[in-house]
Amino acid sequence: MRIAVDAMGGDHAPQAIVEGVMLAKKDFPMIEFQLYGKESEIRKYVTDETNVKIIHTDEKIYSEDEPVKAIRKKKQASMVLAAQAVKEGRADAIFSAGNTGALLAAGLFIIGRIKGVDRPGLMSTLPVMTSDAGFDMLDLGANAENKPEHLVQYAILGSFYASHVRGIKNPRIGLLNNGTEETKGSELTKKTYELLKAESDLNFIGNVEARELLNGVADVVVTDGFTGNAVLKTIEGTALNLMAVLKDSILDAGLKGKLGALLLKDSLRGLKGKMDYAKYGGAVLFGLKAPVIKTHGATGPEAVAQTIRQIYTMLDSHMVEELVAQFEEKKKQEGAFSINEKLQKKVDK
Amino acid sequence: MRIAVDAMGGDHAPQAIVEGVMLAKKDFPMIEFQLYGKESEIRKYVTDETNVKIIHTDEKIYSEDEPVKAIRKKKQASMVLAAQAVKEGRADAIFSAGNTGALLAAGLFIIGRIKGVDRPGLMSTLPVMTSDAGFDMLDLGANAENKPEHLVQYAILGSFYASHVRGIKNPRIGLLNNGTEETKGSELTKKTYELLKAESDLNFIGNVEARELLNGVADVVVTDGFTGNAVLKTIEGTALNLMAVLKDSILDAGLKGKLGALLLKDSLRGLKGKMDYAKYGGAVLFGLKAPVIKTHGATGPEAVAQTIRQIYTMLDSHMVEELVAQFEEKKKQEGAFSINEKLQKKVDK
Repeated sequence: MRIAVDAMGGDHAPQAIVEGVMLAKKDFPMIEFQLYGKESEIRKYVTDETNVKIIHTDEKIYSEDEPVKAIRKKKQASMVLAAQAVKEGRADAIFSAGNTGALLAAGLFIIGRIKGVDRPGLMSTLPVMTSDAGFDMLDLGANAENKPEHLVQYAILGSFYASHVRGIKNPRIGLLNNGTEETKGSELTKKTYELLKAESDLNFIGNVEARELLNGVADVVVTDGFTGNAVLKTIEGTALNLMAVLKDSILDAGLKGKLGALLLKDSLRGLKGKMDYAKYGGAVLFGLKAPVIKTHGATGPEAVAQTIRQIYTMLDSHMVEELVAQFEEKKKQEGAFSINEKLQKKVDK
Repeated sequence: MRIAVDAMGGDHAPQAIVEGVMLAKKDFPMIEFQLYGKESEIRKYVTDETNVKIIHTDEKIYSEDEPVKAIRKKKQASMVLAAQAVKEGRADAIFSAGNTGALLAAGLFIIGRIKGVDRPGLMSTLPVMTSDAGFDMLDLGANAENKPEHLVQYAILGSFYASHVRGIKNPRIGLLNNGTEETKGSELTKKTYELLKAESDLNFIGNVEARELLNGVADVVVTDGFTGNAVLKTIEGTALNLMAVLKDSILDAGLKGKLGALLLKDSLRGLKGKMDYAKYGGAVLFGLKAPVIKTHGATGPEAVAQTIRQIYTMLDSHMVEELVAQFEEKKKQEGAFSINEKLQKKVDK
């Protein structure tokens, strides 16, 4: 098992990235880590060289670079070289905390889509307040627009992830909608509902509303990239703002506030922990020929190690290979079905 | 000034509604309140009869009724009679805490749209964490789908509301999008961006992201009804879930938790108060020939009184009349423009 690591991506790169890899190495001595980036910088943080390869390059992609242009022009950037390694079979997965758009572009244009997945989506496991389970949601914004067929593909992808990586049997798939009734929604959600209902392999539980997401109403929630992006950012913004208001009002309460906060330290920390979804690993650009994983730019070593664990599980469960087979089978069935339809039409005449 | 009140709408009707009206009467003795509903029930809570008319009816619309059907079939329902009064000029505005869909239908089919507003939208003033100002957002779900022209109409409506009712000079209009750059977004948001930029009367500040909404990034935020509905429900769901987790973990902390919570009582109450947007009044179904206002089914007397204050300000500022004039002017200009365009085309030939 070989993971290509963009050691130069993220706000605290390469230190946080390499330190995270060193942490992960303790649990996963069998993984080969390929660290792409400035060798002299990387080497400072390598405490154990076994199974570690450093591939030196001076070039890197910055967070402010225009994604597609960066991927096309900066052929020697650490992220591009790491993606090339996956493409050419020298690595099995890629991890980066760098420019999200550039990683999406690298995934699409260098590594490539699974046949049958039209528009790979961005997926994260988000926190459920009532349990430790979490739920997977996609697309969180890889696309600004989606068709019903894409959402069905997301349901298949999400279902595989929930079962293979999170160990959930027969994951419950929900469609994000503006009401729970079957007749509710936009043209997109109404058509998607019909298609999902017809997918006998999926445990489709119907429409779910945004108010119920953090209650664990479904194990996998599918939506278009525009809505998913808005919902994810709303969760983050609401949580951050509430925590900030609480903190301010505790500080304003003076000594009483300090004492109260001290007594509630564990409770307040627990609240923060509940919302922190880095514990589930990074975001997956899902539907590509290999795992492509992105973490926040501010990611620290622990979150990097957690993400390596996630990638290990994805590779170890052979999820991508199974997905390739599944989508090929689906394609065949649809092909057979459309041949049958054509025959039927001839008969009808 | 005459307000038609659906006294039978809401979980605690007619008690909470009539008590709220009685509260509001103290500040607004000049308003005539028309209370539609079961007279014997309503009369129990009327403590001051001056300027109060009770219009008796036995019929009412339930929260589980199918909206359009209910409006068409239940001709004598309290909500329908109240809407009829507005249509026929016997009242100036309508207020209900009942079935939202039915009120939308009553507004559209009985009271009718302002000429030039294609798809009235649902608008609420939502809380800003860093100040007491709040921001107006629409459409929150009156429509499942919107065109760019609708969003421009929402910007005009929202701007009028922010200036006339909330007293904000030159309100900042933001377009909800999945990134702040002009080139970001779906076909809908890209086209809307262009149109909003061309509206010289609006203070359009560009795209805003969902993460920044509660920071007060704009005074008015426009979006399509599907996204708006998802964002509103996500804010509510996230806030409710966080408060519940905090409460549970305080209870789990035993005596220490109880003591800490006691010390932080004001801070925790302040947090709840920050999120409670009933203080800004009810949701406006906006773009109709008269104010149509909806509050939560669980609304209590104080929130009803607050909503009466909001309706008073809407009526007192003659906002709807000005909007009618504004949209007529807009229509004329576009008409003149299209005549010019036609002439130009003739010249070109």
